[in-house]
Amino acid sequence: MPIVDVHTHIYPPTYVDLLRSRQTVPYVRTFPENPDESRLIILPGEDDPSTPSTSRGRPIGPEYYDIAQKIAFMDLHKIDTSVISLANPWLDFLPAAEAGDAAKKINDDVDAICARYPGRLYAFGTLPLSAPAETVVGEIERLAGLKHMRGVIMGTSGLGNGLDDPALDPIYAALEKHNQLIFLHPHYGLPASVYGPRANEYGHVLPLAMGFPLETTIAVSRMLLSGVWDRFTKLNVLLAHSGGTLPFLAGRLESCIKHDGHLKAHGKTEGRRDIWDILKTNIYLDAVVYSDVGLRAAMNASGADRLLFGTDHPFFPPLEEDAEEWHSVNANYSAISATFKDDDKAAQGVLGGNAVRILKLDL
Amino acid sequence: MPIVDVHTHIYPPTYVDLLRSRQTVPYVRTFPENPDESRLIILPGEDDPSTPSTSRGRPIGPEYYDIAQKIAFMDLHKIDTSVISLANPWLDFLPAAEAGDAAKKINDDVDAICARYPGRLYAFGTLPLSAPAETVVGEIERLAGLKHMRGVIMGTSGLGNGLDDPALDPIYAALEKHNQLIFLHPHYGLPASVYGPRANEYGHVLPLAMGFPLETTIAVSRMLLSGVWDRFTKLNVLLAHSGGTLPFLAGRLESCIKHDGHLKAHGKTEGRRDIWDILKTNIYLDAVVYSDVGLRAAMNASGADRLLFGTDHPFFPPLEEDAEEWHSVNANYSAISATFKDDDKAAQGVLGGNAVRILKLDL
Repeated sequence: MPIVDVHTHIYPPTYVDLLRSRQTVPYVRTFPENPDESRLIILPGEDDPSTPSTSRGRPIGPEYYDIAQKIAFMDLHKIDTSVISLANPWLDFLPAAEAGDAAKKINDDVDAICARYPGRLYAFGTLPLSAPAETVVGEIERLAGLKHMRGVIMGTSGLGNGLDDPALDPIYAALEKHNQLIFLHPHYGLPASVYGPRANEYGHVLPLAMGFPLETTIAVSRMLLSGVWDRFTKLNVLLAHSGGTLPFLAGRLESCIKHDGHLKAHGKTEGRRDIWDILKTNIYLDAVVYSDVGLRAAMNASGADRLLFGTDHPFFPPLEEDAEEWHSVNANYSAISATFKDDDKAAQGVLGGNAVRILKLDL
Repeated sequence: MPIVDVHTHIYPPTYVDLLRSRQTVPYVRTFPENPDESRLIILPGEDDPSTPSTSRGRPIGPEYYDIAQKIAFMDLHKIDTSVISLANPWLDFLPAAEAGDAAKKINDDVDAICARYPGRLYAFGTLPLSAPAETVVGEIERLAGLKHMRGVIMGTSGLGNGLDDPALDPIYAALEKHNQLIFLHPHYGLPASVYGPRANEYGHVLPLAMGFPLETTIAVSRMLLSGVWDRFTKLNVLLAHSGGTLPFLAGRLESCIKHDGHLKAHGKTEGRRDIWDILKTNIYLDAVVYSDVGLRAAMNASGADRLLFGTDHPFFPPLEEDAEEWHSVNANYSAISATFKDDDKAAQGVLGGNAVRILKLDL
């Protein structure tokens, strides 16, 4: 059975050029202390003067934009096929007039990159979400015709008001119609105030370990509460980082809905699809959770046949200069081995079989 | 084996009087539309004029302050013993000069309430955290001598700067010295902006289902990152709501620490106790997670012998007028039954045996 990585990012040269041309987050820049090192600044505040130099974004090298490095990484970690996606923050920040063309260019570039490595690369497309809805719908239709595209990657902002915004309905309808899966990925995290006055001492840990998964969980909960899946019963979503924390919180979420006086007064506690139904029907979870404790919860929530291996490459490289294999990748491999130690078939499904089936990969 | 509820709140009459005397959150008040109904407003913004009337706090009745109702609730749900605690926001909001006396009065009142029901009631004490550290330490020492006290309940604010504030060290030292467990409970949630422009349509769901557990998870992560458990190796903490989302996110938290360039540059990725060690040594988790998916993750993270049944009474009552048993309680009973269906001994531990052992209850 093949090993398929569904969570692996690429910054195609077009996109890196765009980031290098900008002066505010997100952008690529150098700092006076180290003028030869380009750093990728994507999270809000990462370039704040109070941020310690070691926490100002991350070094950006060819592993971000050179596809040959992606293939070498795949070979090193025995990954047969990668479903690559543009990394956050995608095109969320572009003016409306520029977004449509930028998305076309990036999607065509990425499709062409995939074509260079038959069977080894597929992709999730990028949507021009700051453009008018018809532009977005047009790109969804165009993506359905690109050979290597298998869905779209999307952040939690939607059109700027979150994924519970009714203005997204034409976009959800188009995705559902064309059977395009949404790979839902965090970027915005949580307001810095929640990390307290000492947050700078902890590097990127709190925004990445807490902010990202919590953002995803809140976004999915808002989709549920606004009835997205009651209106679009076949809309499929692949959640990054095993759902953020959704598997763990699903029970509390349902209990809070059932016990809410306001929802009850408005007849909204009953007659809706609940989160357990959605988890087993519309949601897929990547297996990027770095522990068997988390992965077992993901399995118990959605089923082993809905989990998909991922690496989050090129993020979380080993920090030791002499390291070859990536600890972050091996942590996720180990979690799969531990969770499915008595079920080879399920393990093979998570490692690749599920991705082949769900994304209709032609391997 | 007895059934022990470790997560159950009380508003002793002293505290209700205090809330009735106030004009801002937290307080008890009526609204013009319904002048006969007192409502308890504890979450920030719950009394905002834009908040729908059905979301403005919650009705407060004798179940909040009449201990006879607590006992009746316990009888209905076959709970032998409850370890009661003052509900959020405790005394966090009091001026420094008032906090010490208020804590004494409330702790003495609660201890006296417990004395009226021998074997049926124990309590976690309340600390005057806005008072000078020596006042807080004095109250910890006094609590150690009160017959029914078995630790302290604490929010995530600490002295106002979170639980990673070094100024808490004398308080942690006193708690460790007197072997007093901290019942760590959320209150402040997350800034309203994270719930988006439609949050009012969803009642209390997002702040309670997401904000509360996420607040707890961030607070514990900050304790870990600041080295609280490296300095206080015997400091024990019982986490509300099965740790918020800590069991699910522990793997990602460790991975983010190990891969953080800033922490690495400062020698902080190694030579520290990791979260798995803390989860199995210093942390206990209540079993208030409303699903077996969540409870299994809690078990896998901390061990079945560190999970403790709870109800969160008097919150989450059934909304149906004719309901007798509480669905919220039965959801947690069901999660325990499902998780430990093949291990009666472990189930009995979670239901009460662990609490008897850990809290040294004399039943």
